[in-house]
Amino acid sequence: MFRKTRLYTPGPTPLLPAAQFAMAAADIHHRTAEFRALYTRVLAQLKEFVGTENDVLMLSCSGTGAMEASVSNLTSPGDRVLVLSGGKFGERWVALAKAFGCVVDLVSVPYGETFDLEVVKAAVKPDTKAVYLQGTETSTAVRHDVQEIAAAVRAVQPEILVVVDAITGLGTTHFDVDAWGVDVLIGGSQKAVMIPPGLAYLSVSDRAWAAMDASKNPRYYFDLRKERKNAKNGESAYTPAVALIAGLGAALDYIAGQAGGNLAEGRKLLVDNAERCAAMTRAGLVALGFTLFAPTAPAAAATAVAVPEGLDSSAVVKEVKARFGAVIANGQGEMKGKIFRIAHLGFFDYMDTIALLGALELVAKDTLKLPVKFGQGVAAAQEVFANSK
Amino acid sequence: MFRKTRLYTPGPTPLLPAAQFAMAAADIHHRTAEFRALYTRVLAQLKEFVGTENDVLMLSCSGTGAMEASVSNLTSPGDRVLVLSGGKFGERWVALAKAFGCVVDLVSVPYGETFDLEVVKAAVKPDTKAVYLQGTETSTAVRHDVQEIAAAVRAVQPEILVVVDAITGLGTTHFDVDAWGVDVLIGGSQKAVMIPPGLAYLSVSDRAWAAMDASKNPRYYFDLRKERKNAKNGESAYTPAVALIAGLGAALDYIAGQAGGNLAEGRKLLVDNAERCAAMTRAGLVALGFTLFAPTAPAAAATAVAVPEGLDSSAVVKEVKARFGAVIANGQGEMKGKIFRIAHLGFFDYMDTIALLGALELVAKDTLKLPVKFGQGVAAAQEVFANSK
Repeated sequence: MFRKTRLYTPGPTPLLPAAQFAMAAADIHHRTAEFRALYTRVLAQLKEFVGTENDVLMLSCSGTGAMEASVSNLTSPGDRVLVLSGGKFGERWVALAKAFGCVVDLVSVPYGETFDLEVVKAAVKPDTKAVYLQGTETSTAVRHDVQEIAAAVRAVQPEILVVVDAITGLGTTHFDVDAWGVDVLIGGSQKAVMIPPGLAYLSVSDRAWAAMDASKNPRYYFDLRKERKNAKNGESAYTPAVALIAGLGAALDYIAGQAGGNLAEGRKLLVDNAERCAAMTRAGLVALGFTLFAPTAPAAAATAVAVPEGLDSSAVVKEVKARFGAVIANGQGEMKGKIFRIAHLGFFDYMDTIALLGALELVAKDTLKLPVKFGQGVAAAQEVFANSK
Repeated sequence: MFRKTRLYTPGPTPLLPAAQFAMAAADIHHRTAEFRALYTRVLAQLKEFVGTENDVLMLSCSGTGAMEASVSNLTSPGDRVLVLSGGKFGERWVALAKAFGCVVDLVSVPYGETFDLEVVKAAVKPDTKAVYLQGTETSTAVRHDVQEIAAAVRAVQPEILVVVDAITGLGTTHFDVDAWGVDVLIGGSQKAVMIPPGLAYLSVSDRAWAAMDASKNPRYYFDLRKERKNAKNGESAYTPAVALIAGLGAALDYIAGQAGGNLAEGRKLLVDNAERCAAMTRAGLVALGFTLFAPTAPAAAATAVAVPEGLDSSAVVKEVKARFGAVIANGQGEMKGKIFRIAHLGFFDYMDTIALLGALELVAKDTLKLPVKFGQGVAAAQEVFANSK
């Protein structure tokens, strides 16, 4: 039988057709009035999408580039920072902070868990300059409570900068950047906004701008002050990924269009959509006898699923691809072979969710030899759908 | 929740991405060496795909244009022809033959049925010039036995021309044009070959070419002799649908690629694929309590399903679209409101099939109020899949 390629990975995610068409049509020069109009419009949309009064900037790089920018622009060698790590991307904060000479205090939890607020508070020192964390940890599909963590660290050190990697979090969980006092919130293109990798974006608070001039770190491509200055004139500092920007505009139009043109409401629907797909998927997998890997703080961006002891999740990933053309994600780092991950962020719908469960039922039965009854995972997902409004 | 648009209609069918890319790139002029190379290549592929030693020509028109060509080129006003009709497209043969002044003998069966060979034979007169029929009748999803019918009519009148509308049949059922003595076999682009509407193609036997010179019908755009002459030079008589031809080439490459580059074998796999999707769908729908509309001679191109007495199939079509974004087909003509139709021809796979059954289960329960148990249609389809090699 034919096997269509279908991404169920937490980045890259399935592309929105309207964004693909906009990308294909994007043969415009980046130092023209036409581009300036596009860039200005997309930056304004993005600000509405992030939901903040802070500046929102775009960078032509992957999310890690924006993570680096939020270290290199905000710290100086020798500065003390706190990193909260519960997975591969938490570990990336540690590596980045060390690369720029920071003194790193680390609160680390095992993969699949989130942080104890008292432990976090105890780790904040009087000279802690910034705290770096994930909104959702992609490698474990765990959601961290940014609101509570921000409040907790500020209760100890009011001037601390709060920097959130929301690359998989934006559009899959609720953030209130301004009310929660998030100084930098980072997003990426290949996630809930349904376009390919290559663009990152971040919101920057006044407190973060003030810290930037004091930074003694070398920075050039990721100098956010330069980007802000250029953005005011509708341009990027360096050659931008024009097609991706056109695609992002089309995707944000689509998201707004789901809520009568209101991007803030559209983002809520995007979160609801991910939550619905996640709830269906989880009910289906539990009905098939799988164990959810992170049941206490699950992120709607993705579901991480443990395979029974002694079995290999790599076989599930491989067979779903080989038999059905669908791409799901293995565990990362120490979780490889132990869990598999299914994305819900961005352009997924009811039929995508049912189709994947229908494929997983066969793989669970034939590859993992689980006592699966055909249709039982699908039925559990349908119950969730039918019982939600 | 998001609702992706998904076609499950027996033409147009889901587009093959590689064909879409080829169409987007097709900005070439049709009176150039570049186009002549493309056209010559695609005509050769098409001949292999149809599986014949006869000439194969392309026309820039819908399938009906090629049906017209096979009436206007082969008959003269006053000629006696036999039409075998079991649905809307059989009726189209009648209308076409009458439009060109033929004397029409009609063997007609109720929608959902196929022909009795003895009745067909009895309808052939000594002066019957040609017989017109469908390979598969799209409006009822019935397969007619072209091999047996061709042999039966030839047993009565050896010189009769056999003209087969295989628009939904090609790539969904087996044809042996040369061995069965099919004089004209017609295909269309928006069917099993996975590209949009706008191209038709047809094979033409020596017997048909011989009949053409005798025809006194007026014809210009559809003059097949002109097309054959031009095709020998790698050109079409009139401006061709260049992008569709490029797309068709890419689609035939894909079909061949499924069988190591062999188009004849690729076509068999395409038929197998449709049959597998059809068998899964039928098992699923029967498990949900539906009645197959044409159980005696079902075409793999599509499945026609009767809704229980007193219910309206239009509601199913409407709700599947409104709730899930998927487009299935209503009955046509007198079958509207009584049946719905689900396509299997072309670019459909296991996950498409499961996803649609998952959607139909909800609609059967909520809209038709059938006593559906979630997952039971999906499970029946999975059994079929698991038990097929």
